[in-house]
Amino acid sequence: MIGNLNHVGVATPSIAESIKLYRDILGATKIGEPFDLPAQGVKVCFIDTPTAQIELIEPFDETSPITGFLAKNPKGGQHHVCFEVADIHAAIAEMRAKGVTILGTGEPRIGAHGTPVVFLHPKEMGGVLIELMETPKEAH
Amino acid sequence: MIGNLNHVGVATPSIAESIKLYRDILGATKIGEPFDLPAQGVKVCFIDTPTAQIELIEPFDETSPITGFLAKNPKGGQHHVCFEVADIHAAIAEMRAKGVTILGTGEPRIGAHGTPVVFLHPKEMGGVLIELMETPKEAH
Repeated sequence: MIGNLNHVGVATPSIAESIKLYRDILGATKIGEPFDLPAQGVKVCFIDTPTAQIELIEPFDETSPITGFLAKNPKGGQHHVCFEVADIHAAIAEMRAKGVTILGTGEPRIGAHGTPVVFLHPKEMGGVLIELMETPKEAH
Repeated sequence: MIGNLNHVGVATPSIAESIKLYRDILGATKIGEPFDLPAQGVKVCFIDTPTAQIELIEPFDETSPITGFLAKNPKGGQHHVCFEVADIHAAIAEMRAKGVTILGTGEPRIGAHGTPVVFLHPKEMGGVLIELMETPKEAH
């Protein structure tokens, strides 16, 4: 089912400071413009590598779902791993049939790449918060 | 400096159980044979996607460097992110010049892909344990 490892979500208290780290220290060259994703409660910024991306995630406001993560990890840290799937509804049905818990309402939301996404419960995923995102149509 | 996001290191108390999860639940199809890396204190197993890999990491023995991580995260979890660099010695020199702390002796060790690697201190990397690995020559 899972296709490309699309990105690693990295929570940060400050996208601006993290950009300095990835650009000035680690020498990343392809850094997108940060943008708000209020429906998900986050601001995001993608750093491209020729393979997968780093998705920097900063809380949009105090009700952000990553506020708790940052309280435990004030400097930030690895938050989730995102795999692409061909069809999000087929993936959700397959996960449910296998007894996997979909977080939230269980319905997909539109993610940072503009395609529907869901998150799987880390307790059932070896402690890893896994995002499944439908592969953007124009990318392939 | 950083090139491909090569892999995400995922610590697990049991590679065998994690393989079941990635193969039977998530439907990964390209799963390598697990192998020991005693010099690093770990057993590893790579799960390939068309972009980056998941590197499952299980302690080789009780002195393993991931024993502490698993004590805090008994189910496992995201342990590190690995980026490729063209020349590990040039990368180390650049990191030192920028004041970044290289973990351990500061000298590269041979990593799971057979090329030299170092790890950067997460305190200086936004809470993310970052591995730099020299790109395997045969891969490009």
